[in-house]
Amino acid sequence: MAESKLTLWYSPGACSLAPHALLYEIEKPFEAIRLNVSGGFPEEYRHLNPKMRVPVLSLNGEIITENPAVMTAISQLAPEKHLMGQTNLEIVRVYEWMNWLSGSLHGQAFGGLVRSHRFSDDPSTYESIKVKARKYIVECFGEIDQKLIGVHAVGDRFTAVDVFLYVIYRWALPMNLHLSQNFPNYTKLVEEVERRKSVQAALAAEGLDSKL
Amino acid sequence: MAESKLTLWYSPGACSLAPHALLYEIEKPFEAIRLNVSGGFPEEYRHLNPKMRVPVLSLNGEIITENPAVMTAISQLAPEKHLMGQTNLEIVRVYEWMNWLSGSLHGQAFGGLVRSHRFSDDPSTYESIKVKARKYIVECFGEIDQKLIGVHAVGDRFTAVDVFLYVIYRWALPMNLHLSQNFPNYTKLVEEVERRKSVQAALAAEGLDSKL
Ligand SMILES: N[C@@H](CCC(=O)N[C@@H](CS)C(=O)NCC(=O)O)C(=O)O
Ligand SMILES: N[C@@H](CCC(=O)N[C@@H](CS)C(=O)NCC(=O)O)C(=O)O
Repeated sequence: MAESKLTLWYSPGACSLAPHALLYEIEKPFEAIRLNVSGGFPEEYRHLNPKMRVPVLSLNGEIITENPAVMTAISQLAPEKHLMGQTNLEIVRVYEWMNWLSGSLHGQAFGGLVRSHRFSDDPSTYESIKVKARKYIVECFGEIDQKLIGVHAVGDRFTAVDVFLYVIYRWALPMNLHLSQNFPNYTKLVEEVERRKSVQAALAAEGLDSKL
Repeated sequence: MAESKLTLWYSPGACSLAPHALLYEIEKPFEAIRLNVSGGFPEEYRHLNPKMRVPVLSLNGEIITENPAVMTAISQLAPEKHLMGQTNLEIVRVYEWMNWLSGSLHGQAFGGLVRSHRFSDDPSTYESIKVKARKYIVECFGEIDQKLIGVHAVGDRFTAVDVFLYVIYRWALPMNLHLSQNFPNYTKLVEEVERRKSVQAALAAEGLDSKL
């Protein structure tokens, strides 16, 4: 099979850090293009993704969006690594985690905290949206900590869920939530994830420090 | 292989209608248990899903939540039907649609409209959250309409995405959005979906009318 042509558009430390690490995990050549979405997705890249979000992956010219789909596409390039789970039930569990992490914890909770304007056009509501979002983040972190029984979220092997959990944990570091005390299982998992070569490579490429 | 023991907990017309139809699609025996979540997920079922949402699927005793994961599990029981896509790229497209429909259109947009209390504890903000949610629904429906090129969302065959799109379209029927005028491609798709035997069977089981 010819090498796939792979390009990832990412923003440092954003949810795109998860597929960025997976690209190192599969050990295939790729190009990574840095955007900065902290003030919003840059207008001049709208043609890439009209939903105006990273990650965006181009795979042999096909533009793929939505983090779980981007990670699915990357995983398909190294099927022997089973990055989206191996057994049928593991695959189901991976998508169960992904959908909840992406829609509820990322989209609703962190979205409310960092992008309150998605939920209302009236700035006087943002403080209350942020307060609720912060509560929901704490609640979700509690659910994660309870659900984890080993150092991997699904089965007894590294999957894309682990690295997505790692990226989300990083977002909570400045929030003063006493993470290692309050969420010891979650903390153990992310420490394990951070030791991976792929994650170290993605952090370096994005100009980020290990922070744990 | 022994028959799988399958139970779906659903609420009439909710997002669980999509996996309910898929259960008829695969033509395997299952049990469907009706809950009513219109006033919130019933407390006495918390043990089933601490996230307090439908759909919940039990598959040989494994409890599965999150609509895309539930639909993945059902699809695995009839792999020859390729309900989550057939080729690698189709599978990626299915999860791309699923994640956006579930997280952004369902969770953020319809969530804001119908469950504003998820986003703020201050009822005085709800009106502005609902206004924004309604705008976002219209925007998403426009994106859907633009993206559709045939009567199926992915490839040229029925997938789980089609029936999820159908369920979401139903939610918009009372919103006075002039759906068939403004979103003709989307309307064509849902008309096609509604003709399926599986969808008719799920509507009947949930006590719902065809409304298109
Ligand atoms: N549903 C999308 C959400 C992606 C997303 O929200 N990305 C953020 C970065 S973590 C972004 O691009 N934000 C830019 C903005 O909101 O303007 C996915 O799962 O990929
Ligand atoms: N992320 C979940 C969301 C499911 C969801 O929000 N279900 C709604 C019905 S459409 C529900 O159970 N709502 C009850 C409530 O909010 O109290 C999924 O994809 O399954």
